[in-house]
Amino acid sequence: MRIVDIREKSIDISRYSDPAIPSGGLTTSIVSVTTDVVRNGVPVIGYGFSSMGRFAQGGLIRERFGPRLLAAGDVTPLEAWTAMMKGEKAGGHGERCVAVGTLDMALWDAAAKAADLPLHGYLVQEFGGGNALATIPAYASGGYLYPDNDLSRLTDELKAFADAGYCRAKIKIGATTLERDLARTDAASAIFGPGCLAVDAMNAYDAEQGLAAAKALKSRRLMWFEDVCDPHDFEAQSRIAGAYDAPIAAGEALFSAAEAKLLDRHGGLRRDRDILLFDPVHCYGLPGYVEILIALEGRGWPRSAFWPHGGHLFSLHVASALGLGGVEVNPSSFPPFGGLVDQARPDNGRISPPDLAGIGFEGKPDLAALFSAL
Amino acid sequence: MRIVDIREKSIDISRYSDPAIPSGGLTTSIVSVTTDVVRNGVPVIGYGFSSMGRFAQGGLIRERFGPRLLAAGDVTPLEAWTAMMKGEKAGGHGERCVAVGTLDMALWDAAAKAADLPLHGYLVQEFGGGNALATIPAYASGGYLYPDNDLSRLTDELKAFADAGYCRAKIKIGATTLERDLARTDAASAIFGPGCLAVDAMNAYDAEQGLAAAKALKSRRLMWFEDVCDPHDFEAQSRIAGAYDAPIAAGEALFSAAEAKLLDRHGGLRRDRDILLFDPVHCYGLPGYVEILIALEGRGWPRSAFWPHGGHLFSLHVASALGLGGVEVNPSSFPPFGGLVDQARPDNGRISPPDLAGIGFEGKPDLAALFSAL
Repeated sequence: MRIVDIREKSIDISRYSDPAIPSGGLTTSIVSVTTDVVRNGVPVIGYGFSSMGRFAQGGLIRERFGPRLLAAGDVTPLEAWTAMMKGEKAGGHGERCVAVGTLDMALWDAAAKAADLPLHGYLVQEFGGGNALATIPAYASGGYLYPDNDLSRLTDELKAFADAGYCRAKIKIGATTLERDLARTDAASAIFGPGCLAVDAMNAYDAEQGLAAAKALKSRRLMWFEDVCDPHDFEAQSRIAGAYDAPIAAGEALFSAAEAKLLDRHGGLRRDRDILLFDPVHCYGLPGYVEILIALEGRGWPRSAFWPHGGHLFSLHVASALGLGGVEVNPSSFPPFGGLVDQARPDNGRISPPDLAGIGFEGKPDLAALFSAL
Repeated sequence: MRIVDIREKSIDISRYSDPAIPSGGLTTSIVSVTTDVVRNGVPVIGYGFSSMGRFAQGGLIRERFGPRLLAAGDVTPLEAWTAMMKGEKAGGHGERCVAVGTLDMALWDAAAKAADLPLHGYLVQEFGGGNALATIPAYASGGYLYPDNDLSRLTDELKAFADAGYCRAKIKIGATTLERDLARTDAASAIFGPGCLAVDAMNAYDAEQGLAAAKALKSRRLMWFEDVCDPHDFEAQSRIAGAYDAPIAAGEALFSAAEAKLLDRHGGLRRDRDILLFDPVHCYGLPGYVEILIALEGRGWPRSAFWPHGGHLFSLHVASALGLGGVEVNPSSFPPFGGLVDQARPDNGRISPPDLAGIGFEGKPDLAALFSAL
């Protein structure tokens, strides 16, 4: 397929279902890539967005990667990716990795639509289906600190997750005192029991704070303890892992295979239990994510350790096609980007990607309307 | 000072004095920041650019960091930096670090002009002058592979460096066969003798290629062997350092204190001889650079190991004020950004920053014209 038009827009996103609650000025880019492929009389258009958490990338998309894609000629998604990365220098794995990943998502959406396949089916064709899973373990992600009535609103949010059929959940810690965070963790544990609740410190702790949190959390039988310190502070992470036998999770804020190998070599992680959160959008898109997967599999990591960050439909297709350990879902955060397609519910804690052509954004009317407006 | 207007433009730059020679589509951003400070009846305006080698950053400057700076109120350069970094997440040290560094350069230019001091004098006031050096060792940097007549054009380029008063130089390797690179190195060594020529492999080698190059280069008594592999491949770098007793240089493509500490801990570098190339623009500007300097000094590195990348006047002021080991100069590459102010020449291989107010871009008429046109 040939990319003949690219449009992008920056969109404000919120950690809360109520976007009036201040949320750090987060943004994401939405993009459309129009192809020269015609289906049912109209051009196939792929949609993508910048996942959550690393800001919109309009400038890099318009100025650097979009023009390369428009000049790439007739390409598969993998060839398009190579064209976008041409001339990029070693190191510096921030921002551009998100810009490339945003366009990459739209390319896969377009290619799968052109093949009239749901993305997970298209990926099985492309990468082989030996590991594919029809259903994937999922957890409901949210639990950000509320500016007021935090404990009762947190409890309401988690009850809603349980009512929606989720049997695992993750909340955020690190934005208030450890004492309050332990109260939050215990309130959430009353709804999601042993082994079913994860806590995410969002890289907020230094070594001493992380050690204090680990000490307090280790009796609480968590699903995992996530982003325990700065993502490049492998010294602190190793010390914290050394004081915390239960699973820890890392990798959400590392965006390259080069950094993933360093994490494996120096980060103190345990291949028999720890969790890898790399985001298939933020890591230069699917080709970059697969490079990380192959590198770490080669070093002894099981695929079941990979629970991709993002909480959106793209990660779900990727996890299904590649047979990963599980996925995040944002049932209430980051509307309209989070959550499943309408009417979809977990079954025994597992979910399936939609069977619409492409990623299936069209099954989420609010999100589809955002994309169509491009 | 308060920033009342910011302008930016993306500029094509070339590795060659002849910009007609293809040069990888390199770009840099130029910016102006207009302050509310009036001197001689006109507002003080600071100028900055994105150093060389990591592409222009117009989108991030316009969309993310410029607006924060305009909203920052009455600030010093350090306070302005904190305002620009507000809400930025851990990890992801690429692109944004260049955008912030570009604006940071202009802020220091403006602040020094407002104080009617050359930047090195202003920095001595800000950071203390205990380490300041009036003159700094310098080397002439260039020697990129020419598409034709490479050896004779390389020789001409290096003779011009010697004629301009430089007694140290650096050339690029890694873009052709090792055999041709050894011939290039030997041709350059005939002009810049033992200990006076560095070679820069531009992160092009994997471990085996780097080891082969190290083995061939070690008899050649180089000033240093630079960027010997991927900047995050500390395993390869350690192996290469283990096979190469003479100095190696690293850090040009690492942009944060977090990564600098990893380089120190895992990169196999030797504090008694190796060279640290961090770029004071690309590392989130001067505040980020100083954070790296303090972190590595605390781990036993001497200031003399720091030879900042960039080859421009900003690095020269920083090196002088902080008392670093030396600086790169680009006498012919990246016109009009490289090189000294007109009429300035090395004296015994050492140079001084200009004594004009601010960075002194006004002493380079071609460059000053670019900035004024903003």
